[in-house]
Amino acid sequence: MNLILIDTAEVDARGEVCLRDARAVHIRDVLRAAAGSQLRVGVIDGGVGVAVVTSLDATSVVLRCDVSRPAPARPPIDLLLAVPRPKVLRRLWAQLAALGVGRVMLTNAARVERQYFDTHVLAPETYRPLLLEGLQQARDTRVPVVTIHRQFRVLVEDELDGLAPPGAPRLVAHPDVATSVHETARQAAGGRVLLAVGPEGGWNDFELSLLEAHGFRRVALGPRTLRVDTACVALLALVADALADRRLSADP
Amino acid sequence: MNLILIDTAEVDARGEVCLRDARAVHIRDVLRAAAGSQLRVGVIDGGVGVAVVTSLDATSVVLRCDVSRPAPARPPIDLLLAVPRPKVLRRLWAQLAALGVGRVMLTNAARVERQYFDTHVLAPETYRPLLLEGLQQARDTRVPVVTIHRQFRVLVEDELDGLAPPGAPRLVAHPDVATSVHETARQAAGGRVLLAVGPEGGWNDFELSLLEAHGFRRVALGPRTLRVDTACVALLALVADALADRRLSADP
Repeated sequence: MNLILIDTAEVDARGEVCLRDARAVHIRDVLRAAAGSQLRVGVIDGGVGVAVVTSLDATSVVLRCDVSRPAPARPPIDLLLAVPRPKVLRRLWAQLAALGVGRVMLTNAARVERQYFDTHVLAPETYRPLLLEGLQQARDTRVPVVTIHRQFRVLVEDELDGLAPPGAPRLVAHPDVATSVHETARQAAGGRVLLAVGPEGGWNDFELSLLEAHGFRRVALGPRTLRVDTACVALLALVADALADRRLSADP
Repeated sequence: MNLILIDTAEVDARGEVCLRDARAVHIRDVLRAAAGSQLRVGVIDGGVGVAVVTSLDATSVVLRCDVSRPAPARPPIDLLLAVPRPKVLRRLWAQLAALGVGRVMLTNAARVERQYFDTHVLAPETYRPLLLEGLQQARDTRVPVVTIHRQFRVLVEDELDGLAPPGAPRLVAHPDVATSVHETARQAAGGRVLLAVGPEGGWNDFELSLLEAHGFRRVALGPRTLRVDTACVALLALVADALADRRLSADP
């Protein structure tokens, strides 16, 4: 935890919060804080700042928080992801939040097995703590917005433009193309980028055509076939790096 | 498994191999192969090609292999990695092999806890199957060479030039620098790239100075603090992408 995330509902009228869960353990045993210690804190989907430890004992830690600095900007990348195997998705949640995504759209696809939709890894009570773990790692407060779409075609044809601005660049990772993520994302005019990552075995022809008909351009991730979680991390890193490069180049 | 990896010792004089382990289960239950099916195969640290299923039953699969195509080139990236927490390292092995590294040098550092060296995740009998899993995912046959170095200074001062060619670009990931991985790796004159990734909490000043004195240049991975496994995957993807870009630009 490089940032302690708290919920506004936890803060009392005096601006104090009393923690008794894993955060208290972390503050006491890992950060080795004492009364008077200062810690980085953030409010979930809100501002960031500093907290002073006002008291701590074996069961609780009390913090007085000043979170008057503005929330970090929402990460400029959204992810459209075919639901992966539960074990893979479980590994992925914290990493997605740490790398920074604004929105995660989980979708069906021909090569997604039906039972993947019935797993508790798709339940907010499972994934939200994992997302918060990733945010605390990366010092962000913005929880990615997660939506689940059982009908790929309805998502792409009817819902996508409402979820991700249609003018923003849309990339779909695909083997056997030479177009680099870096150049495509870097040359993009600005704003957000929407990245689509398919299931193990890939999108089928219909799905790929539908994505391309709705503005997605194929980009390559090299010749090696990666597990979905590895591919997501790699692609998000490439897009973020390209966008950072673009900002650097745009600076005077 | 996008490639079935076999050991030369498993192949009999007629070029046949009889599998009875997880590979047999995979061929039968996931690939749903029958007698006569063709499969992609590779020899560990050797060539690749095609195998024909000559027989299969509930306990075994017999393949006749033609692996006359040359081994894939060794991946042009080496990794110098401060030993991460065992749980993180366990998650990392297969991903390193899948992304492609020639050599992994695991090293001590001030912020590496001593007991990390005593874990079975550093034992070949643990990590070799995980490396093979990653290679089978990525269709590679080249097992990354793993070495373990309990003395960081001895590694960097005395051993490194023998393990990684001193002329090759050396990058060390570090927060708060503006130099992009992409530009640094892309502008590199050629050959291999050596990437150093520090422990949770980072290299200390002495370690960073020693690395810089031995040719490492600081590169940025953006403002977000990532878990070591996420950071490794992200950095390896960025370096590989930059090297691929360089090759594309160099083509006539």
